[in-house]
Amino acid sequence: MTKPEIHQSLQSAFQIIEQLLGPERLFVDPVTVEAYAADQTPQRCVPAGVIFPHSHEDVMNLVCVANEYKLPLVARGGGTGNVGGALPVPGALVVSFEHMDRILEFDVDNRVMVVQSGAITAEIDALARSRGLFYPPDPGSAAYCRIGGNIAMNAAGPHSLKYGVTRDYVLGLRAVAGDGKSLRTGCRTSKGVVGYDLTRLLVGSEGTLALVTEAILRLLPLPATSATLQACYKNSAGACAAVSRVMTQPVIPAVLEFLDGAALNAVREARAVADLSTETGAMLIAEVDGAPAEVARQAQALVVALRGPGLIQLKQADTPEAITALWAARHSLSHAVKRLAPLKINEDVVVPVSRLAALVARIESFAQTYRLIIVAFGHAGNGNLHVNLMVDPDNLREMLRAQLCLRELFAAVLAFGGTLSGEHGIGSEKRQFVPLEIQSETLALMRAIKQQFDPNGILNPGKLFPDPL
Amino acid sequence: MTKPEIHQSLQSAFQIIEQLLGPERLFVDPVTVEAYAADQTPQRCVPAGVIFPHSHEDVMNLVCVANEYKLPLVARGGGTGNVGGALPVPGALVVSFEHMDRILEFDVDNRVMVVQSGAITAEIDALARSRGLFYPPDPGSAAYCRIGGNIAMNAAGPHSLKYGVTRDYVLGLRAVAGDGKSLRTGCRTSKGVVGYDLTRLLVGSEGTLALVTEAILRLLPLPATSATLQACYKNSAGACAAVSRVMTQPVIPAVLEFLDGAALNAVREARAVADLSTETGAMLIAEVDGAPAEVARQAQALVVALRGPGLIQLKQADTPEAITALWAARHSLSHAVKRLAPLKINEDVVVPVSRLAALVARIESFAQTYRLIIVAFGHAGNGNLHVNLMVDPDNLREMLRAQLCLRELFAAVLAFGGTLSGEHGIGSEKRQFVPLEIQSETLALMRAIKQQFDPNGILNPGKLFPDPL
Repeated sequence: MTKPEIHQSLQSAFQIIEQLLGPERLFVDPVTVEAYAADQTPQRCVPAGVIFPHSHEDVMNLVCVANEYKLPLVARGGGTGNVGGALPVPGALVVSFEHMDRILEFDVDNRVMVVQSGAITAEIDALARSRGLFYPPDPGSAAYCRIGGNIAMNAAGPHSLKYGVTRDYVLGLRAVAGDGKSLRTGCRTSKGVVGYDLTRLLVGSEGTLALVTEAILRLLPLPATSATLQACYKNSAGACAAVSRVMTQPVIPAVLEFLDGAALNAVREARAVADLSTETGAMLIAEVDGAPAEVARQAQALVVALRGPGLIQLKQADTPEAITALWAARHSLSHAVKRLAPLKINEDVVVPVSRLAALVARIESFAQTYRLIIVAFGHAGNGNLHVNLMVDPDNLREMLRAQLCLRELFAAVLAFGGTLSGEHGIGSEKRQFVPLEIQSETLALMRAIKQQFDPNGILNPGKLFPDPL
Repeated sequence: MTKPEIHQSLQSAFQIIEQLLGPERLFVDPVTVEAYAADQTPQRCVPAGVIFPHSHEDVMNLVCVANEYKLPLVARGGGTGNVGGALPVPGALVVSFEHMDRILEFDVDNRVMVVQSGAITAEIDALARSRGLFYPPDPGSAAYCRIGGNIAMNAAGPHSLKYGVTRDYVLGLRAVAGDGKSLRTGCRTSKGVVGYDLTRLLVGSEGTLALVTEAILRLLPLPATSATLQACYKNSAGACAAVSRVMTQPVIPAVLEFLDGAALNAVREARAVADLSTETGAMLIAEVDGAPAEVARQAQALVVALRGPGLIQLKQADTPEAITALWAARHSLSHAVKRLAPLKINEDVVVPVSRLAALVARIESFAQTYRLIIVAFGHAGNGNLHVNLMVDPDNLREMLRAQLCLRELFAAVLAFGGTLSGEHGIGSEKRQFVPLEIQSETLALMRAIKQQFDPNGILNPGKLFPDPL
């Protein structure tokens, strides 16, 4: 089709969508489309329109029209993703689930909540907590991200160490496949083995197979209390050795976070924390939870494991205020790191926890070799590090060094038996690296599955998969 | 093809298989094929041969030949399945993984074990325990079932209440798809989100998508100690009310098992337990585990929750001998129940735990209405009951009543928001009932996925899916 033909076809599709979904659902004005042109990646692409469905039936109608007109649909929750998973492609319609944010059912006795996919993660958790339960997955963006986005990316957070990831809390889904099929997957009980596990196939599929409209979530009893430990070390080697000691003794912490020297420097420069000693070159933050006596016992076990060569200081907090103070360095990081350079290339690698020390040492050597500021922090107990290459996009030599560094980082991660992403996903940003990890035959099978759900390729094109050779 | 042609084609396929895999791998003698004609279901079908691969490459070669000759392959672990998942079809080759039973790697520091799919589940667990770890899924057949079968059916057991099912402990797989593609899925770290989750798609797929050759398993630290409680109630209503109370207070038991009156009668008739009072009409067995002080606290919480109307007796055991004694009734059940009738129709339904009392009441009324002995017991904390219809296959009227009863049982389970199988799977035995639970569009998508893995339909035909209309 020529450009005018495409335009006409789009107008015709939009008219039908407005007829089917009603007024005030589809927005094509410049302010709206600009607002939905990006997620938390630096890329931008202005979509043709933004649609706000109100129901599963709306989504069914939308997918039907989109297939007819070969109109790409890019699902979007809170737009908080780190890899361009919600980045539009030219001519696409962004499907925002912000108006499908209701909690449909809260079955306290069975510890189950049924929610629309636009429900905000923290609101799900808050409602659960009001009845002595909680929703464990806790991505950093929980206050404004949406459960549909969490499901798309299989989101996780610090508490995933003890409690697992989004996948572990999704019992069943309602969704519309790319071909328009209306799906119900899984069940609402804690066990169920009837048919293929389409629920977990959809979790982490980044909006490329189906648009999720509802989810049945599993909740857990809220631990009575928790305690937080902060351990400061001379350097990363000391901190990583402590991570190994913690993760080979029997108490699994709820949280075990790591901050490297560059991260602490960023915190210092942002003057975010008052009492960070100059000699501290790495930090661990650990949390244990449970009944009070159990928390005391677990904290004691962690104190023993955290002690060792290079430990400078070990603090424990049991009150909410004191706990907040110990977390200050970690919580200020996101803001503090942004001050270091105009652009943050944000990686999310994972290695077996016994290889964490080796990975961190390699990252430190990469920073030297490639003359880059690299800030590494993250979920040490899972071996999951956020490796941030701080660069100036206008400095082309630095950008080239960053690309070379990334390649070497990924090669190291895979050589250590790790994976390229622990919780952020692939999106548009990492897809060229997928063949480093997934063998071509396995990848071909994933493409074949995609084809079954979405034969016209209208759902989130240009995401998750590398471009075919 | 005519019968002689089929025979000739089979002989030709067998010759190639022997050439590729070597001698002493393929058995077609009457004794062997008879021994592999059934799993734990009453159905039998003598296969054309039984093959014992020794490596992933053997399996690749086998699948290649099977595609060429359209030879059905039926994967088999320990042959302990309850639904005919390993039941041969006419002309099929049973692929026994008994000779692929090695533990390839035990990475204690990262709590990971890499095993061949024929490894015996209890041996995996025993090795883990030798280093202070354990493999949580504990099907009743753990002593002789094999991990590949557990993966095929997403097996579970009593401890799934606290620890989850096989799916939750499989990090990655090596497998050969039905079309011969060699696959590596997942990763060996506790987090990883690169590509579609083929690992969980294969778990529970009952050997219909791929033949699993290796698995990367996650292990947990072994709890220091445990305590067991046995609560005897006048009737099932009292026991089920106690299950609700246990499952709405914050302590999640490691185990919460239920035995109904008919189960206890079977135990009494088998004289399996000495001290079972005549007035006991239902029993619960609960276990808590953890550090000693924590076990005491949890046990106390359960004692409070287990007390209530209808409680006759509550015993606690902390020593291995005393624990074994409290479990005697439950452990004798399998044998005791078989004495009741020539045939056990063994169901494995699940309902939300708050509906367990209603389900048990319905089962009691079904026993009356259909004049059947029905024995119900199982994993009450998950709402997962094994409902056994004890019948004489030669009594056609009784068999007809049993069929009518089953239909009504399934309708009740689904009306309660439950599922038809919690851990046994579908196999050949339950597949006619799948459309009661899974909508036709969702089922069509499962078939489409099957087609991508196994275009010639050679892997475990006649399982999991109902016959097409």
